[in-house]
Amino acid sequence: MMAGESRLHDLRIDVDRLLRRIDALGEIGRIDGPNGEWGNARLALTDTDRAGRDLVVTWMRDLGLDVAIDALGNVVGTREGADRTLAPVMVGSHIDTVGTGGRFDGNLGVLAGLEVIETLARHDVVTERGVQVAFFTDEEGARFAPDMLGSLVYVGGLALEEALDIVAADDGARLGDELERIGYAGPVPCPHPAAPHAYVELHIEQGPILEAEGVTIGVVEGVQGISWTEVVIVGQSAHAGTTPMRLRHDPVYCAGVIAAYVRDLTRTLGHDQVGTVGRVDVYPNLVNVVASRVVLTVDLRNTDESMLQEAERRLGTFLEELSLDEGVEISTRSLARFEPVAFDARMVDRVESTAQRLGHSTRRMPSGAGHDAQMLARICPTAMIFTPSVNGLSHNIAEFTEASDIAAGANVLLQVVVDLAQDAPTD
Amino acid sequence: MMAGESRLHDLRIDVDRLLRRIDALGEIGRIDGPNGEWGNARLALTDTDRAGRDLVVTWMRDLGLDVAIDALGNVVGTREGADRTLAPVMVGSHIDTVGTGGRFDGNLGVLAGLEVIETLARHDVVTERGVQVAFFTDEEGARFAPDMLGSLVYVGGLALEEALDIVAADDGARLGDELERIGYAGPVPCPHPAAPHAYVELHIEQGPILEAEGVTIGVVEGVQGISWTEVVIVGQSAHAGTTPMRLRHDPVYCAGVIAAYVRDLTRTLGHDQVGTVGRVDVYPNLVNVVASRVVLTVDLRNTDESMLQEAERRLGTFLEELSLDEGVEISTRSLARFEPVAFDARMVDRVESTAQRLGHSTRRMPSGAGHDAQMLARICPTAMIFTPSVNGLSHNIAEFTEASDIAAGANVLLQVVVDLAQDAPTD
Repeated sequence: MMAGESRLHDLRIDVDRLLRRIDALGEIGRIDGPNGEWGNARLALTDTDRAGRDLVVTWMRDLGLDVAIDALGNVVGTREGADRTLAPVMVGSHIDTVGTGGRFDGNLGVLAGLEVIETLARHDVVTERGVQVAFFTDEEGARFAPDMLGSLVYVGGLALEEALDIVAADDGARLGDELERIGYAGPVPCPHPAAPHAYVELHIEQGPILEAEGVTIGVVEGVQGISWTEVVIVGQSAHAGTTPMRLRHDPVYCAGVIAAYVRDLTRTLGHDQVGTVGRVDVYPNLVNVVASRVVLTVDLRNTDESMLQEAERRLGTFLEELSLDEGVEISTRSLARFEPVAFDARMVDRVESTAQRLGHSTRRMPSGAGHDAQMLARICPTAMIFTPSVNGLSHNIAEFTEASDIAAGANVLLQVVVDLAQDAPTD
Repeated sequence: MMAGESRLHDLRIDVDRLLRRIDALGEIGRIDGPNGEWGNARLALTDTDRAGRDLVVTWMRDLGLDVAIDALGNVVGTREGADRTLAPVMVGSHIDTVGTGGRFDGNLGVLAGLEVIETLARHDVVTERGVQVAFFTDEEGARFAPDMLGSLVYVGGLALEEALDIVAADDGARLGDELERIGYAGPVPCPHPAAPHAYVELHIEQGPILEAEGVTIGVVEGVQGISWTEVVIVGQSAHAGTTPMRLRHDPVYCAGVIAAYVRDLTRTLGHDQVGTVGRVDVYPNLVNVVASRVVLTVDLRNTDESMLQEAERRLGTFLEELSLDEGVEISTRSLARFEPVAFDARMVDRVESTAQRLGHSTRRMPSGAGHDAQMLARICPTAMIFTPSVNGLSHNIAEFTEASDIAAGANVLLQVVVDLAQDAPTD
């Protein structure tokens, strides 16, 4: 049956049901901290990722969704609308995590999507357009670089075959093989031939801004540009006691000044520039051996593409000079590069006005993290809703968002989706 | 039979036989490089170390030595002299290697000792004093810190029980358990109750000085002091994109400035000070996560104890300031600390005059590396003989010493041992 606009505007999600799903999914790959905090390790395409996928797919089927698994393991559950000729509204995110991640990052957007579906179903609401809930493969990029891989291929940004051939940095596994192994190399083509009507992603902020300002809903205007570079430094292994300092070609020393330079670069380029050396591997990694080789990563982000390019240029010049100064070989490889993304202005307005109609404080802001939404923005009008992160923590088992904020974010998602699902074909 | 002095002075080792033993031992745990170079991985108390030990013990028994294995796995083979009441002359070194080590480091001193024994035996020489060949457990410290552990306990510098309880940094194994596992927890007490008459160790230089100056024999006057410190930096794991730079507590950044500071420290304190960050472990070690924790090691060495203390003091002050600046916890733990050692002046003179009598160029020098000899120097007159290292390389599979230099070094060892073994009881 069709519902009137006022009745639709009164729909609200059940936050306890949503939290139960978040906790149940979080039990898979659960990591407990010393002070009661707990998070998740479900690296993409591992056995724990499979177990998480199986649970979410079971929930999708229990809710009567038509589940489609594509050739890269992206999973889309569809609730048909009244008019099957209209493109559906998609919500989604990811359910993979970093090695020591939280239980809200990604999972919230997917499970809030299921909560939207269940709310519509329990109220017998039939929307004009269908509603889809998607989770995309390997958003974190923690096992297979680049991040946001599943949504990138979904929108046609990278050839499927290239993605399947990516090899895990840690364990050397090939992505396509792992996808087969866990049973998620599906029959549906990827990239998907038809774009959704719109895409909306609810996500935790993963930063400290909303909490610091006491704001409930972040209205995301776009996403920082991201540049990930792998730096390989090859020096000369030697004895740490007998080799005079002037004769050394020490890649650990080089890694050290690179980490210090990245910090300096963020100071020089100003507050929008962030930079991180998050990974350092030393060979042979022994106390009394000048190392032969170091592999490290540099993560640079900026909301301004020209500034991001400037940061990359300066880093490149620094590495060239360092290579000459220390007599080491330094080579670089891009692991990921995404330009800053601006979301559709009318979609951003809809999120803002909906949140305000529901009585929540709002703040327009960029996203400091990459999200599947920035990929979907290539093929359809897209928006994101942020909820606060306690202490700004994420990628950390202490990551937490208050139940009241989860309820607020999920209700904004529900109302934006209901609104979009009534859009006429010409809209 | 006893031999006259002139006949003893004409004795020479068989370098081909010695090289065959070096190569045969090197086959165990062999690592091949891309350009024909090859070295060894025989970390202490692993299965490959056991295989190496078994081979050397077999050779000792084939040469008629009485083999004694002590409670820490130190192995001493004894060839009795004419007067069994006199303390024997000991030669030796170690046969464990670093993870990517050469086939000469340590092994040369042990196998040249066997070559001395075989030369004496084939010429039916009976020395007044016995001659012992020893190899000491875990000299490298690459698996179990500190280095020179076996000889340290042998001379009573550390209690046996403490040594047996040391846990491997990499694999968490307990030293005593590994010793039992490989069958080298022997019945002989350690420390050994009786000191040798003297100890002489032939070793490759592991540095570039002899080669650079065209000198064949290094007459080692003593050993640099060594200070190994493990530094643990605990920061705050956070998202690399969403966490403003001013709110970060980044242990990788700290590790970077520590590595740079150690280099600066060697510049400030002058040419005798060397310093190395050789090991860095980052947790969780992911491209898009500000790390929560870094463990690194600092290796400081100086021939002057007061300068070494000054280097330690400055590093400590730097770490305290860094901890406050970045808002991280920094704790340190000493992994090894040895004061500089001066060898017995008469022993040093004997090495020098013997090398010159054999027609070799000589150079007095300190050792930049730690050696078992510095431990034996606590209980008996001790000396070391250095042979050149091609390109100064060691702790590297490309480590190499020319056959002519090995012959020169082993003949100096033979002649010094023969000379010492005729010392009267009052000498």
